[in-house]
Amino acid sequence: MAGVVFLFIGKTKEGFIRDGIEKYARLAGHYLPVDIREIKGATAKDPDAAKEEEAESVLGRLSPGDIVVLLDEHGKNPVSVDFAAEMGRLIEQGRRTVFVIGGPFGLSDKLRRRADYLLSLSRLTFTHEMARLILLEQVYRAMTILKGKTYHY
Amino acid sequence: MAGVVFLFIGKTKEGFIRDGIEKYARLAGHYLPVDIREIKGATAKDPDAAKEEEAESVLGRLSPGDIVVLLDEHGKNPVSVDFAAEMGRLIEQGRRTVFVIGGPFGLSDKLRRRADYLLSLSRLTFTHEMARLILLEQVYRAMTILKGKTYHY
Repeated sequence: MAGVVFLFIGKTKEGFIRDGIEKYARLAGHYLPVDIREIKGATAKDPDAAKEEEAESVLGRLSPGDIVVLLDEHGKNPVSVDFAAEMGRLIEQGRRTVFVIGGPFGLSDKLRRRADYLLSLSRLTFTHEMARLILLEQVYRAMTILKGKTYHY
Repeated sequence: MAGVVFLFIGKTKEGFIRDGIEKYARLAGHYLPVDIREIKGATAKDPDAAKEEEAESVLGRLSPGDIVVLLDEHGKNPVSVDFAAEMGRLIEQGRRTVFVIGGPFGLSDKLRRRADYLLSLSRLTFTHEMARLILLEQVYRAMTILKGKTYHY
């Protein structure tokens, strides 16, 4: 199983969110290899230039065979079971799945074009850090759904 | 300002979620009085009986003048700005707003009938504890939107 990689722009600063991400990464790690990589934010001051700089950092870390799931407020907002089914299809392909959450400057169209799946977590807006936590929890949830395990809460 | 009350069934067990809830409650508390109350879960073993028992616990803590916002997966899933506008309308009425998240047994119809607003955070399913954290963050976000402040993230 090729596993999943999470590419985040900038460090997760909020302590409780770091704790939660670690927890769900560990739990999801029982099902498949999980790797979280925090990429340095842009040095450019201009928002558009910063966005492009960050997009290039992300693109430079992708391999041609990677499946890219990009968080985008205009993306699909599936129910959890459908998200799990989608995850199942991705995993079956045996290719590495890379989840990308952009920085506060927004998403570059170049990055959007590289994405295989645009995912929206909700119509509500979350902070970039909360989005990381929610995404990790959903990926873990998807694994438990795929394995038919009861997720106690 | 009458403030907001959060009624949750059962204690928040997850440490990082407790930390996050505390943070957003403190931040939202700069804008209006915030009170979080954790109600004991049902003692009944039968799921339907437990659901009714928990609904009665919640109803017993409500006053006739309270505005009740109930989290319900079939509720409205607004964008954050619309949620903020709704919060603004509620606050202007000068009545206490009570946010209710049910327990793992689901929602009683009796509770649904008492609700003034059914709110869905996403089409994705979250754990009851994650829903608490996300709700607190959104209420804080709504306050910053209403006050026209920049929410840095």
